[in-house]
Order: sequence, then C-alpha cells, then structure tokens
Amino acid sequence: MPKILLNWVPTQSDFELMRKTLPDAEFEVPPWQNLEEAEILLYSPKTPDLDALIPNMKNLRFIQSLMAGVDHLPWSLIPNNVIVASGSGANSEAVADMALALALSALKFIPFYQNEMKMDLWKRRVSKDLDSLTAVILGTGSIGKAIAKRLKAFGMQVVGVSRSGNQVEGFDNVASSADWSSEPYGDLIVIALPLNRDSYHMIDKDVLSRLGGTRVIVNIARAAIVEPQALKVWLQENPTSVYASDVWWNEKLSLQPVVVEQPISISYLPNVIMSPHTAGLTEYAQERMLTTSCENIRRFLEGGQPLGIVRKEDYSQTPWNEN
Amino acid sequence: MPKILLNWVPTQSDFELMRKTLPDAEFEVPPWQNLEEAEILLYSPKTPDLDALIPNMKNLRFIQSLMAGVDHLPWSLIPNNVIVASGSGANSEAVADMALALALSALKFIPFYQNEMKMDLWKRRVSKDLDSLTAVILGTGSIGKAIAKRLKAFGMQVVGVSRSGNQVEGFDNVASSADWSSEPYGDLIVIALPLNRDSYHMIDKDVLSRLGGTRVIVNIARAAIVEPQALKVWLQENPTSVYASDVWWNEKLSLQPVVVEQPISISYLPNVIMSPHTAGLTEYAQERMLTTSCENIRRFLEGGQPLGIVRKEDYSQTPWNEN
Repeated sequence: MPKILLNWVPTQSDFELMRKTLPDAEFEVPPWQNLEEAEILLYSPKTPDLDALIPNMKNLRFIQSLMAGVDHLPWSLIPNNVIVASGSGANSEAVADMALALALSALKFIPFYQNEMKMDLWKRRVSKDLDSLTAVILGTGSIGKAIAKRLKAFGMQVVGVSRSGNQVEGFDNVASSADWSSEPYGDLIVIALPLNRDSYHMIDKDVLSRLGGTRVIVNIARAAIVEPQALKVWLQENPTSVYASDVWWNEKLSLQPVVVEQPISISYLPNVIMSPHTAGLTEYAQERMLTTSCENIRRFLEGGQPLGIVRKEDYSQTPWNEN
Repeated sequence: MPKILLNWVPTQSDFELMRKTLPDAEFEVPPWQNLEEAEILLYSPKTPDLDALIPNMKNLRFIQSLMAGVDHLPWSLIPNNVIVASGSGANSEAVADMALALALSALKFIPFYQNEMKMDLWKRRVSKDLDSLTAVILGTGSIGKAIAKRLKAFGMQVVGVSRSGNQVEGFDNVASSADWSSEPYGDLIVIALPLNRDSYHMIDKDVLSRLGGTRVIVNIARAAIVEPQALKVWLQENPTSVYASDVWWNEKLSLQPVVVEQPISISYLPNVIMSPHTAGLTEYAQERMLTTSCENIRRFLEGGQPLGIVRKEDYSQTPWNEN
C-alpha cells in the first residue's frame, strides 16, 4: 500500500477526490505519525514549511507539487535521487484567462477608464487594433500554449520564446531566449515561464532599455523574473507602457491572508495594473490540481514516466532561496 | 460623375483614402455649395445635425453611415425611396476586442483588484473557470460573430440571440429573442444588437428579475437597450453581478469633448465597470470605416446591392427620437 504524505490537511471532499484516483493509497496528514515510511510527498505551498519535513523523510522517492511553480521548494534539502514533478497543466486554462484579462485591461485602458468615469471624467484614448499587434509569450509550456490560443482569436501575431527556440504548435514562430533577450520586441509581452536559475531577472535593465516604450508587459508567472528597480525606471521613462501583473516581489505564497513583507515600490505608478496573485484561484482549481497531481502519482507508482519532471540543475544555487 | 455629400470636413489623408476607392466621385463638404445635386450622403455622427440637411437634398437616393449604429439618424425626415446602409462590419473586430476587455475585467475582477492593491489591500476572490461558463451574445451580426470567435477560444459555451433564432456559424446555438427574453440565461451576457424599435429596453425589469444574480452583463452596443431604473435595482439586489459597459444613457455621440446631459445614475454602484464609448476608437478605425463605407457606395453606384441595408420599419416611431 503506497504511503503518501501531505503537508496540509485536506477537506473531506478533497480526500474523496484523491481516493478516486488513488484508491489503494494511505494518506499521512499533519500532525504526521510516521514520516519515515512515506515514499511520496504531495506538496501544497499553502503550508510551505518543508525545511523540517524533507530531511526526515528517509524513504522519500517522489515529490509531486500541486502547483505549476516549484521555485519555493527547499531545493538544497532535496536528495539527488528524489524525483520532483511540477503540477504544470492543471491550472493552465485559468492562468491563461487571467493573463488575457490583464492584457486586455491594459490594452483597452479599463482600470484607468473605470477610475475616471467614476469621477464623471470622459477621457477617451485611441487604443491599438489588436489584430495589428505582435504578442511575445515568454514560455511555450502548457500555460504559454493556452495564452497563445486565446491571443490568436484576437488576430495577433503570436511568437513564443523558449530556451531552445524549437518550434511549437500554436505559435506563429518560436525564438530562443538568447536571441529574444539580445533584441527584444513585442507590443504585448506575456511572462509565462517558471522561475528558475535561467529566468531569474531575465527582464532586466538591458532588455527593458532595448525594448523601449509603448509596450504592455503582463506577468502571471513569478515577480522575480523581472528586476524591480529596472522596471520602475522603465515605467517612469515610458509612461505609455503598462506593467500588468498578478505576482509581486514581496508576496508570501499562501492562502492565509497574504502578508506583504514590504510595500511594493512600483504600486504608486499610474501605468501599473495589479491583482493579488489570484490567477489560479478559480472554482474548480483545487479539484483540477488534486486530480492532475494524483494521476501523476499513479503514473509514478505504476512505473511510468510522471509528467512535468523538473530539471534540478535549474534550481541549484538560485539567488532567491539561500536556505 | 457621382456627387457625394459629407456632413463633416475630412482630413487630407481621409480624402486620399476615399479617392482611392472612388476615383471618379466629387465630394461636397461643409460649407456646402450645392445640396440639391448630391445623390449620396456619407454620414458621420461626429456632426449629427442632419435635420436641416436632409430635407434640402432633393436628389438624395442613398445614405451610407460610417458607423454600425444608425439609431441617431433623423428617421422621420428620410424619404421612403432613400436607401440607408449601416457601416456594420468595419469596426467589428475593435468592438469585439472591447467587449472581451470589459467581460474579462468583470469576470476576473481587475478594476476592483486595481483599486484595492493600490491601497495595499490583498483581497483575493474566487473567480469562475471560464471554460465552465455559458455566454449569451444578443446579436449575431458581424460584431456578435467576432465576439463569439473570441469567447470560444476561452472554452465557453456560446449562444447567440437574434430575432429569427436561425442558426449561425460560430455559435453553439442560436435562440430567438422572444424565447430568450421569456426565459433568460447566461453567466455572461454581451449586448451586441443595433438599437431599434425591437431592442429598445429589451433588458427590462422582467428580463432582469427572471435572470437573477451572479451574472456579468457587457454592453458595447447602445445604453438604451437596457432600462436604466430596472438595471439599477437589479445591481443593488445582486451585488455579485456586474454591469460592464462602454455606452451610457446620457452621452452625446461626438468626438468633441463628450457632454453628459445628466450624471449617470448608476456610476456610484460598486458593481459597475465603465468606459467612455471608446470601443471603436482605435488607430485604424477611421481608415477602416472610410474604406468600407466607400466600397459600399461603389457597390451602390455600380448598381449592385449595398451591404448592411437597414430595415426602415425598425426605426419608425422609435421612443428615443421624437424629432
């Protein structure tokens, strides 16, 4: 009987969902009685305190993350023989929907109109014809693909950017990160990359200064892909550009009331559109994440290849996680 | 040589565009020298004062509207033998883009988050999974179709509503106005109908009370399709519903600074999202409207059937235009 350790206490209906996919499994929930026997850790960032847990899981062979992002795992504590799988895919549609909501809000000025109209101020702006725009999606994974599909319906030219630059269906073209970073372009740029060693501060002073103005940058991935000081300068120098983001440098990933460690230093800028990391927070998100994760655990247990296996070297010596 | 009267003074580049499509035409612009000879009126709502003009155009045979909406024409003054064509089609993509911007802003709470986050208030809401929603588009014309295409990319079930209820490609289903009005439904309802005798106050107290709550209604057509008092009551009774609109009861259709005759009485409600009638105001909108209109005039001059011919009975004895 496979023993699966959870780092949170699921609701009754969550349990039922998990048992549907993994009827033979035994679930060990906090407060844990027996850390040593579990071979599998199903991990939710709701309670991200894994530092004390992982070193004591002597039989750990597989970590399944509920979420797509695995940047907040304590990578230095995970033994080399342990396979880590991202929850990528389960949330892609919801996150892509949020990316489009932020992009269209920026391109059609909705939050700015909203505040002006509430004061009875009719200040009409000429907007772009969306079918004349080139969109660049950083990331060609399942979220990037879901965003591309939506942007194509608006008639945009859609370019993907990935490490390899290999062509991917659903994109008009795919460029390599190296090529795009040296000569960045795009009327709309959507960040849909995992945060890892390569993507950390990928959008820095160099990229932003080469990019120039009148752009919309949307971030539904991780704030730390963007260098905040460089962004602040760019937004001040390019008032017709907009940064619309669901993710922030000082948020704590938690479904507890979100604690902001420091005030976000760009929030006072008029060309910033903000949402509180809610892209994945939809009615069926929890259900979809649980089912997808449990299906992947079953794949592992049956000796198959789990989906979304993470390349550990991407997360070694990362600058944001020194513990 | 066909003589075309314009009710506004075009820019030099607009003239060049028109001459490209109609090289043999003579354009008569304000201040008009000769009203009687022109057989064609190319009409822009920028200067809507047609009341003095139309009765003096003794040879008038054809009115081409630059815009899709023809509700503000002085219908009672237009002789029966004059054909009127709407500019429908030229702006459809831009208007559909705005409809989506308003819909996604409402469904993903963007303007509400924006105001909260600017005050450092992290108030996360659970949003709908868009692929679980049914969208109802009132209107299956070129704007309705462009909206349907976009909503399908989000995985929504998309139902059209038209007078006939005849099936139209791009919609999962089409219902008749009569059927939908008697049992209205839809998580998202997008108003994309021309304002005419049938659609005036189509969304009234009866429809809204049958519809119930937790809906998003988007209006990119004309405010008067919605009965304002009934809407106000519905929004107050259903705080989880949102009305997101580009069009208002008291606006004047003009590119002059927009004059609001009375304050909009629902603007103080928290569940209202507002933009200042800018759906069609895009970089290439003017160009596209002019070209489309001139192509339609050419069709008329060559003896063909112009597109978008308006049924005059739809505009006779309309309640909003008593002059």
